[in-house]
Amino acid sequence: MSGNDNKAVKPRQMRLGAFMYPGGHHVAAWRHPDVSAHATTDFQYRVAFAKAAEAAKFDLIFLADGVGVGESNIKALSRVDEWSIGFEPITLLSALSAVTERIGLVATASTSFTEPFNLARYFASLDALSGGRAGWNLVTSSDGIEAQNFNTRDLLHAARYERANEFADVVLGLWKSWEDDAFLRDKESGRFFDPAKLHILHHQGKHFSVRGPLNVSRSPQGHPVLVQAGSSEVGKELAARTAEVVFTAQRSLKDAQEFYADLKRRLPAYGRHADDLKIMPGVFPVVGRSRAEAQEKFEQLQDLIHPEVGLALLSTYIGNFDLSAYPVDGPLPDLPESNASKSRQQLFVDLARCENLSIRELYLRIAGARGHWQLVGTGADIADQLEERFLNGGADGFNVMPPTVPGGLTDFIELVLPELRRRGLFRTEYEGRTLRENLGLAFPQHAARPGARRAAE
Amino acid sequence: MSGNDNKAVKPRQMRLGAFMYPGGHHVAAWRHPDVSAHATTDFQYRVAFAKAAEAAKFDLIFLADGVGVGESNIKALSRVDEWSIGFEPITLLSALSAVTERIGLVATASTSFTEPFNLARYFASLDALSGGRAGWNLVTSSDGIEAQNFNTRDLLHAARYERANEFADVVLGLWKSWEDDAFLRDKESGRFFDPAKLHILHHQGKHFSVRGPLNVSRSPQGHPVLVQAGSSEVGKELAARTAEVVFTAQRSLKDAQEFYADLKRRLPAYGRHADDLKIMPGVFPVVGRSRAEAQEKFEQLQDLIHPEVGLALLSTYIGNFDLSAYPVDGPLPDLPESNASKSRQQLFVDLARCENLSIRELYLRIAGARGHWQLVGTGADIADQLEERFLNGGADGFNVMPPTVPGGLTDFIELVLPELRRRGLFRTEYEGRTLRENLGLAFPQHAARPGARRAAE
Repeated sequence: MSGNDNKAVKPRQMRLGAFMYPGGHHVAAWRHPDVSAHATTDFQYRVAFAKAAEAAKFDLIFLADGVGVGESNIKALSRVDEWSIGFEPITLLSALSAVTERIGLVATASTSFTEPFNLARYFASLDALSGGRAGWNLVTSSDGIEAQNFNTRDLLHAARYERANEFADVVLGLWKSWEDDAFLRDKESGRFFDPAKLHILHHQGKHFSVRGPLNVSRSPQGHPVLVQAGSSEVGKELAARTAEVVFTAQRSLKDAQEFYADLKRRLPAYGRHADDLKIMPGVFPVVGRSRAEAQEKFEQLQDLIHPEVGLALLSTYIGNFDLSAYPVDGPLPDLPESNASKSRQQLFVDLARCENLSIRELYLRIAGARGHWQLVGTGADIADQLEERFLNGGADGFNVMPPTVPGGLTDFIELVLPELRRRGLFRTEYEGRTLRENLGLAFPQHAARPGARRAAE
Repeated sequence: MSGNDNKAVKPRQMRLGAFMYPGGHHVAAWRHPDVSAHATTDFQYRVAFAKAAEAAKFDLIFLADGVGVGESNIKALSRVDEWSIGFEPITLLSALSAVTERIGLVATASTSFTEPFNLARYFASLDALSGGRAGWNLVTSSDGIEAQNFNTRDLLHAARYERANEFADVVLGLWKSWEDDAFLRDKESGRFFDPAKLHILHHQGKHFSVRGPLNVSRSPQGHPVLVQAGSSEVGKELAARTAEVVFTAQRSLKDAQEFYADLKRRLPAYGRHADDLKIMPGVFPVVGRSRAEAQEKFEQLQDLIHPEVGLALLSTYIGNFDLSAYPVDGPLPDLPESNASKSRQQLFVDLARCENLSIRELYLRIAGARGHWQLVGTGADIADQLEERFLNGGADGFNVMPPTVPGGLTDFIELVLPELRRRGLFRTEYEGRTLRENLGLAFPQHAARPGARRAAE
């Protein structure tokens, strides 16, 4: 229990995100008999997901993003549904805002290929449309395939984060263009707003020159919730300075605790409190009414992974080494040294050698959850694991990645959530109207107000 | 009756757009007793507009756009609702797509401050979300206030249109990334798409370098309808080459006929037919059950125009000359020569001199409809005017700008549409499922298909 012992009125509860993949998070989900093969392009499928997650009181829906199609391995690409096409997240969440009322709407958008004024405006507009439920997951892009769709060449890590830091400042600044009570709307006098409550940004930086003001008003939650997922040193510093939610991918309790403590420790240097940032690791839960049923569900999905897809996934984790020439049921060959991901490459080589795994066995180990924390068991088993992390300084909540949709989401709602509620670990009703209120994050007071606490900067 | 005599099965009918301004198109609409002063930020107000327009069988909802707040004249700015804030059009239309089923959704977006990959993706996603109802109104930006929100300095007319031409090519190219039947979705074999039906753009131009493919599939209407509004020489050539709908602002029948003939005449040079491009002038209708009632409605709105707003609008039309030092009920002073809008300046000076108008009388002439074709009368009066233009080579339809919302829209629906229907000039039911089908535009066959006609390029 870190951070809020002395002010908690009721017991601390988990925050839960519903990570929306079209047919499910498992790489072969679209081939499952209960999943629609049209999930990627069927808006009503997304509506059903959003409504189910909202009825279950999830804090938010989360959407990942990429701005390109990596068709270098066309065989593998053509065998996965959501690697090639899908809805763009901001438009999708805008549409979902009209058919939901309480659940948060968080979209990923890269700082690498957009203008901060446009991005600030899209998310402020989504926030206004949804009555204060928007969140922006700030990422930077390192993918050369994405960069080729833009006039961009420079994706070096340092430059990406330098740009991202300035980008975040501009966006947060534009979101303060109007004070909360700037709009008078007085028909009698004809005064629509009070000019004294309009603020011009006048940003002149290394990467951006943005005057402002933004042509969207402040929202019921002040501004959209700022989410991040970076785990590098510069990524963690950016998060400590600006993020309000951080998604991560730790597989062990020890790793999760280290990450959690590390990130929270960085906050005071920016005048922030541990409660100002919620850490929510991803979790891939395969839930059954018995352990055998859960295992059976998992194996049914694993059997649907085409070797080309499994090999392609494994290849990306071992430095893009092409394994197609090797027998899939034979051992992992000796690999040339890779600069890209030396430590992760070694992790998989060690795993294969220690457990004497074939190439197929190795890719099956990682393909399903795509590197995330994987839990297979009953509702109580999974609640145990989540509770352990939550109560032992590993997480403020979790980003739940249902293996299939709707089945995997329904399983989590029907089998895990009742267990968590029985233990007092998850809400039975939304606490507030906005995403910020439900996450338990402070309202970012407008700096122009006397005595205002400056949030998120 | 131009263009389609030899293939028309039923009589040619008007296309009608519903131009969505928050509280109405009149500059003082928000002060009207029947209009919500919260219209700019109330999503449900927009939902009601969209549903009313759809029930009345309008072809489309149209949204204008600007990416900045011009607060140089803060007094006037603070007295108009939609000059300062509002929803961003793509997010707003995405939200409206979830609560409508048949009406087209057309958003304005400038080519000056965005990347073509992002814009192609937003509109393709809106098209997919809405089942083939999206349209993109391509504009270029000349506004220095907008440019200051981006790292952009060069807004010279020629450069803007050179960029816009290449931008349109890239967007249209990306919208052909996937053939219509590229997606197999075959669970049994595990093949999600056919790699032979994926096309890489490989665009290398002066302004853009965009590889592709787009990560959104083709829509039921092939691709979003391309709309434009440029009236300059380069603007008309761009429209003749690529546009499928053109919005214009001609106030007289003669001007409308000249523009119509001019634009249609340019099509064959690009291998296009007169029917491939629909011309829809804007119209600002103030409708009453009697002429006196219509006039009274109009005057009620005119009385709500604050002099600061009227003067600011007039000032922009006469070369940004500041009139605040002159008595508002006195004559228009002699104006210094303006480079920006010499011919329009002269038009207003002549109007004031010939009719001996005071400054107030002059701004009242132009403020209400903001330069658009203004009609004040009964349903039959207005139907007469629309019919005359439609039957005499002046228009394929109209973009209707209700003075107030919902009142002005309701008046048009209840008093003008029945007149038009009685004359067989407007539909009683949607002809198709997509915007393209309802507008009577051909499906843009994918060029990769043998024998396909290449549309819109």
